[in-house]
Amino acid sequence: MFTYSRLVEKVEEIEQYEGINAQEVAEKLAALNAFGRTSEGGFTRAPLTPEERGAVRQFISWAKDLGLLVWEDHVGNVFAKWEGTDPALPVVMTGSHLDTVPNGGAFDGALGCLSSLLAIKRLQRLGFQPERSIVLVVFLDEEGSRFGHGLFGSQAIMGEVKSDRLKEFVDDSGLDMYSALEQFGYNPAKVGDSAWDPKQIHSFLELHIEQGKKLERAGAPIGVVSGIAGPSWVNVTFLGQTDHAGNTPMTERTDAMVACAEWIVEVESLPAKHSDTAVATVGKIQAFPNGTNVVAGKVSADVDVRDIQKETRDALLEDIVGAAHKIARKRGLTIEIKPGIKVDPVPVPQDLQDAIHEISKSNELKSITLPSGAGHDMMNLGKYTRGAMIFVPSKNGKSHSPEEWTDLGDCVRGILVLSELVRIEGSLK
Amino acid sequence: MFTYSRLVEKVEEIEQYEGINAQEVAEKLAALNAFGRTSEGGFTRAPLTPEERGAVRQFISWAKDLGLLVWEDHVGNVFAKWEGTDPALPVVMTGSHLDTVPNGGAFDGALGCLSSLLAIKRLQRLGFQPERSIVLVVFLDEEGSRFGHGLFGSQAIMGEVKSDRLKEFVDDSGLDMYSALEQFGYNPAKVGDSAWDPKQIHSFLELHIEQGKKLERAGAPIGVVSGIAGPSWVNVTFLGQTDHAGNTPMTERTDAMVACAEWIVEVESLPAKHSDTAVATVGKIQAFPNGTNVVAGKVSADVDVRDIQKETRDALLEDIVGAAHKIARKRGLTIEIKPGIKVDPVPVPQDLQDAIHEISKSNELKSITLPSGAGHDMMNLGKYTRGAMIFVPSKNGKSHSPEEWTDLGDCVRGILVLSELVRIEGSLK
Repeated sequence: MFTYSRLVEKVEEIEQYEGINAQEVAEKLAALNAFGRTSEGGFTRAPLTPEERGAVRQFISWAKDLGLLVWEDHVGNVFAKWEGTDPALPVVMTGSHLDTVPNGGAFDGALGCLSSLLAIKRLQRLGFQPERSIVLVVFLDEEGSRFGHGLFGSQAIMGEVKSDRLKEFVDDSGLDMYSALEQFGYNPAKVGDSAWDPKQIHSFLELHIEQGKKLERAGAPIGVVSGIAGPSWVNVTFLGQTDHAGNTPMTERTDAMVACAEWIVEVESLPAKHSDTAVATVGKIQAFPNGTNVVAGKVSADVDVRDIQKETRDALLEDIVGAAHKIARKRGLTIEIKPGIKVDPVPVPQDLQDAIHEISKSNELKSITLPSGAGHDMMNLGKYTRGAMIFVPSKNGKSHSPEEWTDLGDCVRGILVLSELVRIEGSLK
Repeated sequence: MFTYSRLVEKVEEIEQYEGINAQEVAEKLAALNAFGRTSEGGFTRAPLTPEERGAVRQFISWAKDLGLLVWEDHVGNVFAKWEGTDPALPVVMTGSHLDTVPNGGAFDGALGCLSSLLAIKRLQRLGFQPERSIVLVVFLDEEGSRFGHGLFGSQAIMGEVKSDRLKEFVDDSGLDMYSALEQFGYNPAKVGDSAWDPKQIHSFLELHIEQGKKLERAGAPIGVVSGIAGPSWVNVTFLGQTDHAGNTPMTERTDAMVACAEWIVEVESLPAKHSDTAVATVGKIQAFPNGTNVVAGKVSADVDVRDIQKETRDALLEDIVGAAHKIARKRGLTIEIKPGIKVDPVPVPQDLQDAIHEISKSNELKSITLPSGAGHDMMNLGKYTRGAMIFVPSKNGKSHSPEEWTDLGDCVRGILVLSELVRIEGSLK
């Protein structure tokens, strides 16, 4: 469970870097997490609630303390600009989000925003003056847990959200996102005006917790994200024959449950044939009629397939659908295939990956390359511009839960690397 | 779909047997099925409704026409006695039920009651006089589709129902079985007085449609039931780790869905190792959290295991549970095993099976031995006394649906064999 005192427990043991105050990192992270604390020790900051906007207001006051120029767009995204020596140049954007899933953790999003802020603060202290303007950003509604539509703010600034669609995103109370934005004084009708020209963004840089165990296992404080694996979903329905479980001999069945089970087992074996980074998951299943004494005549399951390369992801998906057809044919069933969401993977440009590795190396920090299986706002930015992500370790890989944890030393090291990356990207050299 | 005219379409082609009038079989079956017809062409005669009791009243009037002594017990079972020359001897009981599942068929239950009635009528016409009394029975609520508790009437006459439990069996409208019995003038408080001394029952004989395809496939009009497979249910819950489908590599998962799927596939292969009659079915599954982008941390599934021999059934169940443990161990999951209902199989005594085969043979009717996978009232009787069942063919194995069908010729042949069995059982020698 996140507490300030746990975070600063061994603060004196943390390696000191000029321009970064570990105590300040802990204090500010705790201050952001004063908003939305749950009885279970987690944090609930749904977008466009007093909790989430409270954290945003706190963040804005710190940005102003750094002398940044702060503004909000029509859909609640916050920007804070550190003007470069050549304001006409495309900017370096850096930031994350302050909303959380219900009963989520203290680091997901919040650490990213804070890291971008403190990276700028460090560069200012070191007397650095960027040529490109540096734009700090806090995106609205990354998680999508309230209105069912995540990565919202980044999608809006890339011009991918139409204002009439905002009325279709409705929360559990029936309130639509359009109205929720109006309640907080925004002007959702003008969502189109919030779009940036991608040419005006030189790069987008985000620090985030890993939400996995790879860094911890490797003993590496820095993860260099190679790309964000785009999910592709397919619903497969096996159609057999509903029969009495008692009086239908084993040899006379066309059992949709066993067919689907055989497929699920095969799905597990297929990603390794395509790439080291590919994953395939059947996490959702529904049997019909779903009775203990009935041979299931229909079983429907969803598969989630991801990889950081579109080619391998699509080839894997094809194999998975092929396996379903093969099993259905063998067992005398029919199948229905319904494609679901399909998001293209977003690779991180090699020069940005190399830069993070080099910064890490020169600071004697071990870094490893890893894909991001989870989606991030970078997916939207990275489609149009250069995007990079730095991961810091998640204890036991826990995320989206009160158990989410990253040691303060890892937060500090992440901020160091991010600030050096901002320095490089902000310079014309 | 059942109609009188379809039933009598080829009535003149049916082999004639002294004492059985095929036309009468068709007329009486249609008369019973005048009650509860549905708009989809099936029949809904839930127990203790005007539809079901209407069919029962019709049946009683026919029993009285045969000069039988009719009475009802306190819980709606109907009896009609053809007194034997030695009324002190244990009786031969024969009959079935007149309730149906919702939108069920015309033959399930109704044909059995009618066959017992017409078997007696035939023996009367042939001038046979039994030494043991023959007791025709119509059991209340065999299907269990209204109050969720089937095989009720037979359980009650075997003294296995306590009156206070009747208030726990509630229909969808909230009415309990106790009140429903009172509404029809019965006295559920005295359910205990409805129990028979099993010693007073020499044997119980029931004709039923097969509800499977074996007779049709074999071209045999007569099925000799070797036993009723008692179901044993077990709920198996696989407990793994809930993880993000995107950022958890395939090698780092303890996926409850794949573990359960592997088990389901193995369950399918196990019955054949134990006996030809054993079956095992996983018809029900539930995954948690059941999200497309979440590796399932918990999957729960029910297995229904049956065989006509308790030893093989229990050995199979043990293998199935063993397979779950093995798979869980291999994959690093834990499991929870919860036993569900466990009904012992009821074998049919060999002499009764032999008698049915011999009757068939001497009437040039092909007969085959087969197990009953479905439960029947015979399960309750057969625990305490000698019980036998004769199956007649079900077209395409269809049952519990408007498509349920048995040709009139097969009905007639079944009545012939049942009546000869009643003759043997009713005689002392």
